[in-house]
Amino acid sequence: MSQSNHEIVISDETNQLIAKLTALTEVREAIAFLKADNGNTAAEQITLTEIPAPPFKEDKRALWIAERFRELGLLEAGTDDEGNVIGLLEGIQSDPKIVIAAHLDTVFPEGTDTQAKIQDGIIYAPGISDDGRGLGVLLSILRSIRETGIKPLHSVLFVADVGEEGLGDLRGIRALFHERSDIGGFISVEPGDPAGLVCTAVGSHRYRIRFRGPGGHSFFAFGTPSAVHALGRAVFHISDIHIPDNPATTFTVGTVNGGTSINSIAEDACMSLDMRSVSTDALITLEKQILDLVRKAAEEENKRWNAKGTISVSFEKVGERPAGFQTPDRPIVQAAAAAVSFLGFSPRLRASSTDANIPISLGIPAITMSGGGISGKEHTLEEFFNPEKSFLGAQAVLITLLLSGMNGYTDSLIL
Amino acid sequence: MSQSNHEIVISDETNQLIAKLTALTEVREAIAFLKADNGNTAAEQITLTEIPAPPFKEDKRALWIAERFRELGLLEAGTDDEGNVIGLLEGIQSDPKIVIAAHLDTVFPEGTDTQAKIQDGIIYAPGISDDGRGLGVLLSILRSIRETGIKPLHSVLFVADVGEEGLGDLRGIRALFHERSDIGGFISVEPGDPAGLVCTAVGSHRYRIRFRGPGGHSFFAFGTPSAVHALGRAVFHISDIHIPDNPATTFTVGTVNGGTSINSIAEDACMSLDMRSVSTDALITLEKQILDLVRKAAEEENKRWNAKGTISVSFEKVGERPAGFQTPDRPIVQAAAAAVSFLGFSPRLRASSTDANIPISLGIPAITMSGGGISGKEHTLEEFFNPEKSFLGAQAVLITLLLSGMNGYTDSLIL
Repeated sequence: MSQSNHEIVISDETNQLIAKLTALTEVREAIAFLKADNGNTAAEQITLTEIPAPPFKEDKRALWIAERFRELGLLEAGTDDEGNVIGLLEGIQSDPKIVIAAHLDTVFPEGTDTQAKIQDGIIYAPGISDDGRGLGVLLSILRSIRETGIKPLHSVLFVADVGEEGLGDLRGIRALFHERSDIGGFISVEPGDPAGLVCTAVGSHRYRIRFRGPGGHSFFAFGTPSAVHALGRAVFHISDIHIPDNPATTFTVGTVNGGTSINSIAEDACMSLDMRSVSTDALITLEKQILDLVRKAAEEENKRWNAKGTISVSFEKVGERPAGFQTPDRPIVQAAAAAVSFLGFSPRLRASSTDANIPISLGIPAITMSGGGISGKEHTLEEFFNPEKSFLGAQAVLITLLLSGMNGYTDSLIL
Repeated sequence: MSQSNHEIVISDETNQLIAKLTALTEVREAIAFLKADNGNTAAEQITLTEIPAPPFKEDKRALWIAERFRELGLLEAGTDDEGNVIGLLEGIQSDPKIVIAAHLDTVFPEGTDTQAKIQDGIIYAPGISDDGRGLGVLLSILRSIRETGIKPLHSVLFVADVGEEGLGDLRGIRALFHERSDIGGFISVEPGDPAGLVCTAVGSHRYRIRFRGPGGHSFFAFGTPSAVHALGRAVFHISDIHIPDNPATTFTVGTVNGGTSINSIAEDACMSLDMRSVSTDALITLEKQILDLVRKAAEEENKRWNAKGTISVSFEKVGERPAGFQTPDRPIVQAAAAAVSFLGFSPRLRASSTDANIPISLGIPAITMSGGGISGKEHTLEEFFNPEKSFLGAQAVLITLLLSGMNGYTDSLIL
């Protein structure tokens, strides 16, 4: 999922801090614990993946996670009004808190078989990586903290959130930040190679656009404006938009569908439109430009024929994710990069659309890290996860979290 | 199905001929017979409509019609290589012959329930009118000729043809004229009000056009040409074509379909294109213009992005019906107009696409007449036929046929 793939320079100060942190006994123990917990975490990933969590129906998996949060000693563990599972790990300081999150929902509809099959050590199951891995990492990190007596400087909210995928439109994390003002930093965990760090939030606005007209027989009603022709005009105008390369901004008419038969003037035509940008301003400017062009297209088709019946156009917004940008010198980005670098990876900065979009757009330091192991075919029924050395992802997330401070180390890099 | 709806002036000579013809005892008896046969014909229409005749699968209904043709004494009655049922009624002269035709096929796919339901005297069944009525008229006319001892001047071929509808693309009548050179006049019978006479053949060329490209993620692969965008460009260019009002020529992109998801650059997009004209030259000119615009649209999309992957476009011709025009003073047009006028209707000349397209395009006198009664909702499952006074349609067709000459009347208006 990486467009940009930028290297990052880690400051000397950050390198010194990570050396100091990772010299602490508790941290060394926790890192060792995560390695030892690798097989246990993979088994837990299978268990939770086999509890289906279709879009807008994450409740069964949520109950299971809430039970684990309680077992592992999180306070106030339970489900909020939106459906997110939240548990509190008390820190030396109460506020602001740091969130570590993974998403409960999958892209798979109700009825999808999520039973895992294991072959040559590779686990096959829809959702095993996205975001079974993220949830597995949260639980493993929680165990490592419990086992080693680490006390974080800032209180940590462990969050298993709903609605990250597709039409969920980040509803879980959106609700979390709408309800709470005590969050100062945010780490979300998605599948992938630990080297990849998402620090830029690609925002998106999505529409379903529908053209309607009178329709009629292709010969006998010739001169009647066509919903398909109006749609074609709109797609043409959109396809000829030129925008600057920076800030990275994109658009596509992903799907079109219209008309009833080859010899009918179309009554009805729909298209779906996706617009994305790393800049909210650029996204809003593009959106206005495109929606104006779509209205113009309908008018052009009406003017072309000047007939009694006319084409009308309607817009349904089906997605809106905020954009946001963080510079590579932001402490949370430096912390995450230093953590993966310490573990032997070459960190790469990426732009993507994840739960971190919400805090980034609000100016709150946030990063989406990769949970480790080898994952692939996400969003397909062939999705897989190879847990070999996946502990490296969990270790990177833990180190990043602890760079916000703990007992014996208080030079917070995040808050 | 009427675009143009022109009045017609019937020549004095034609009026004198029809007066002479309809004064003959046999003709008066045949006209009376058709009235008496009205209920019988409606019953036969039900029987044959209940034998399904989906596109390209007319064989069962064909067998049934062939059996009736033989019972009613037609010679050489049987099925040709294309599937048309043909039977010969010998005339005083052998060649050239006149064809009277109705089509066997319906638009309804295999498995459609064609059982008739009768309510308040109206018969409801898919295909009961189109072209159950035409086939019923053929059989009733044949009986009236048998009952009255009429001997036509020219031999008549009774034809129940295949493939008139949609993708059948007139294959039955096309094959008939490809195989035979002994046909001098052509009357086809379709459902409708007897006043309507189709004397102009609307030709059509139809295409399925497909755009294919590399596709990709809407954000990460931005800059890749899109099959949907290329299609939009093509539809735009087509929608802006301006053509003269005369000869009547039309075009529409009837359907569009493309892309897989809102956030993918489309790999694949299809459109169906219908072009029609009463002039073959105008149709060919329009076709060249549109196909060039479609190719240009794909090139534009490729040039817009100048990327590695490119859009390709392919064309599949899915229909080609020839166009043709006959002046209102052509004897077959005068004959049909005089016949319906004699029965109290105000004849109207129409342009449409019917089996008569083939002979008209070949310069052979041809007309499509309406079988009478009240019909509606053709091509839908709610199709109906009200047989009240439908004999008027059969009478008009018989009189038109006999204006080509018979025992006691030899001033042929058709040949």
